[in-house]
Amino acid sequence: MEVEEIIEKVTELIDNKKIKDLREFLENVNSADFPSILENVDEDKTIMIYRLLSKEKAAEVFVELEHDDQEYLINCLTDAEIKNVMNEIYMDDAVDLIEEMPSNVVKRILANTKTENRKIINELLKYPDDTAGTLMTTEFIDLKETMTVDQAFRFIKRKGLKTENVYNCYVVTVDRKLLGIVDIKDLLVAERNELIKDIMDTNVVKVNTLDDQEDVTKMFDKYNYVALPVVDKENRLVGIITIDDAIDVIQEETLEDFEKMAAITPDDGDTYLKTSVFKHAKSRIIWLLILMLSAMVTGEVIENYEAAISTLPLLVAFIPMLMDTGGNCGSQTSTLIIRGLAMEELSTKDIFRALWKEFRVAFVVGVVLAIANSIRIMIQYNDLKIAVVVGITLICTVIMAKLLGCILPMIAKKLKLDPAIMAAPLITTIVDTLSVLVFFNIATMVFQL
Amino acid sequence: MEVEEIIEKVTELIDNKKIKDLREFLENVNSADFPSILENVDEDKTIMIYRLLSKEKAAEVFVELEHDDQEYLINCLTDAEIKNVMNEIYMDDAVDLIEEMPSNVVKRILANTKTENRKIINELLKYPDDTAGTLMTTEFIDLKETMTVDQAFRFIKRKGLKTENVYNCYVVTVDRKLLGIVDIKDLLVAERNELIKDIMDTNVVKVNTLDDQEDVTKMFDKYNYVALPVVDKENRLVGIITIDDAIDVIQEETLEDFEKMAAITPDDGDTYLKTSVFKHAKSRIIWLLILMLSAMVTGEVIENYEAAISTLPLLVAFIPMLMDTGGNCGSQTSTLIIRGLAMEELSTKDIFRALWKEFRVAFVVGVVLAIANSIRIMIQYNDLKIAVVVGITLICTVIMAKLLGCILPMIAKKLKLDPAIMAAPLITTIVDTLSVLVFFNIATMVFQL
Repeated sequence: MEVEEIIEKVTELIDNKKIKDLREFLENVNSADFPSILENVDEDKTIMIYRLLSKEKAAEVFVELEHDDQEYLINCLTDAEIKNVMNEIYMDDAVDLIEEMPSNVVKRILANTKTENRKIINELLKYPDDTAGTLMTTEFIDLKETMTVDQAFRFIKRKGLKTENVYNCYVVTVDRKLLGIVDIKDLLVAERNELIKDIMDTNVVKVNTLDDQEDVTKMFDKYNYVALPVVDKENRLVGIITIDDAIDVIQEETLEDFEKMAAITPDDGDTYLKTSVFKHAKSRIIWLLILMLSAMVTGEVIENYEAAISTLPLLVAFIPMLMDTGGNCGSQTSTLIIRGLAMEELSTKDIFRALWKEFRVAFVVGVVLAIANSIRIMIQYNDLKIAVVVGITLICTVIMAKLLGCILPMIAKKLKLDPAIMAAPLITTIVDTLSVLVFFNIATMVFQL
Repeated sequence: MEVEEIIEKVTELIDNKKIKDLREFLENVNSADFPSILENVDEDKTIMIYRLLSKEKAAEVFVELEHDDQEYLINCLTDAEIKNVMNEIYMDDAVDLIEEMPSNVVKRILANTKTENRKIINELLKYPDDTAGTLMTTEFIDLKETMTVDQAFRFIKRKGLKTENVYNCYVVTVDRKLLGIVDIKDLLVAERNELIKDIMDTNVVKVNTLDDQEDVTKMFDKYNYVALPVVDKENRLVGIITIDDAIDVIQEETLEDFEKMAAITPDDGDTYLKTSVFKHAKSRIIWLLILMLSAMVTGEVIENYEAAISTLPLLVAFIPMLMDTGGNCGSQTSTLIIRGLAMEELSTKDIFRALWKEFRVAFVVGVVLAIANSIRIMIQYNDLKIAVVVGITLICTVIMAKLLGCILPMIAKKLKLDPAIMAAPLITTIVDTLSVLVFFNIATMVFQL
């Protein structure tokens, strides 16, 4: 059923006061569809709908909501209802919630959380931002190597309902050192009396609590697992990261990359419409100021050729085309190089191979653009000298732009800076200055200005 | 073990001719690490290493390799060895392989594929590019609603080894209509004599064979499943898509978005270094030509003010700063809007809210930049008139750039075009022309040129 139909049905049931039917209907709606539903009913109906849900469903739905809806709900719920939510949700979701709520709400949440869970939450909150530790959940299936497959099944049956991910089970020693991994498929095809230690895979891909979350997503991408175990410095299993959380990180980091490459200071936060005007302005203004300053250098260069401009004002008409083409060529290359580095298809060791490739591409592109431009100039002005000056400048500009677009992100990477700061806008301003310099130098030479 | 250590160990074992040890060692290396290993040994060792692997491992490793390595291997392998690979790999991987290999290799592959598999492959090859049908695999666990949990376990045990994903099982009628889904967790916590129909979830999220792959990845993102069932027009279950394939699509589509926004025509293909110079040039040149033509319009506008420039050549010095700032402001906004639309945080219905937000942001940003610029002009030239002209133009430029950056991607979306074609480069050239127009108009007015 489409979300629109669900909303219609819900509204209809509310209007006709068919509360029992509504309760039954809601129980079968996918939790991920609730945010859209709650957004489309009157605010006073929100809490009514939410209270109709079963304990388990209520917790599931709560986790799916936007942060401001969660805050609104918590303020409406009784302590007993909050207690229920906190007992049912997984630990990683609880930590997310607490990180996002204002302190008075956090206080009320923690007051309604079981002591044992509160301890786990506090433990998880201690990990630095953007590390594996903050992504992981502490509920997982931990088997002993001496168990039989049959015992393992009984263990999972007992523990399974309170565990987010049962697809991968982990084998640990008594002091919780990670020994191996058993995929649920291996358990299912094994004989009932086989020992876990005989079917487990001891070649475990794992991450450390302090590993960067971006490295964690790369592991998921490379190894196609649905969960990765997280160990501490002593190789003790402390949690697991599930693939849905990894996908969220991938989306988040991608958005950040887009922002950086468009000269926006990323701040992890709300959606476009929910971010305030002031916050939007703040995240954009710093880079604009820096880039404005560097664009002024191009202006200074032009000023030095005032005499040439006064003599031949037509020259100025080619500046926008040279600047834009240089900027676009640079941004094409820098985008490809930055993505290549991010996807680990390229490394700084490849710098000379990449430069050689860009040089040849730039030559082909430059010559084609120069020819197109010369034809246009010959038709419009019938001036061979101008055509030659613009053509040569264009080829030089394209080559400079592409080489800089290649080399600057590589250098940034080598200096352990984020290559994305060398994205299109910065390279554009550098190429602008250079292309204007080349242009006026060639022009003064050819026209003896 | 790190990949470097593995490579070292492998080289050492080969050099010492410890073939038995090498065989044992390789069996425990993760398949995903093999591409790096094979790339770092001599080419004649590649085939030797590959032949040491067990049947299952050989197929697993084969799937992980790059296409050109796969081609090289197939040319080295005997028919019997190819037959083994084709028997072991999953159907979606087989289709990928066949789509990428040259026709003589495809012929040899198909000649060594079982008739039944060849039929499935031909069926899968029929789906249009970039649809759910091309992503899916045809191996999955299909249960009947009348089975008991115990019977289901025995069924999975029999069928599990040849199935990529056992985490989700699907319940179908005799004519293969999809009735429900049973997560393996539900099976594990259920009682042995319960009936499948009593534990299955009938509220199934599914996709159609012809659905666009981008929509499929959005479903994964929204619903946190590890697999999605694919049905045909008659609601018959024909395959499943697993999350690892969805992640590959996300990565691929993200790269395409980056390319489009940097004015590169995306072509699905090789990594940066493996793409030929000619192909690189081809994918960049079309947009450069289009943008060069539109940048010429800005040049034409400037030409119309030749008289003004001759009188006050200093004006030209501000053109690069105005153009760059306009371009950067436009690209900031268009990037945010394009991403918002792609992530479905924004829809075309929000156009007026977004425009109003951008207007206010632009005003704040414009005023700050204008003040910074005026201070600099007063210090450098001590010319209030210039400061006013540049300041006002700057505010106008920022507002125009941000409104265009907002409205153009929205219009593209409304016209069912890809909003990404309205990315930074195109908006930059439009804003350039407008800002130069505003600048010279204000300047001629103020200075009465």
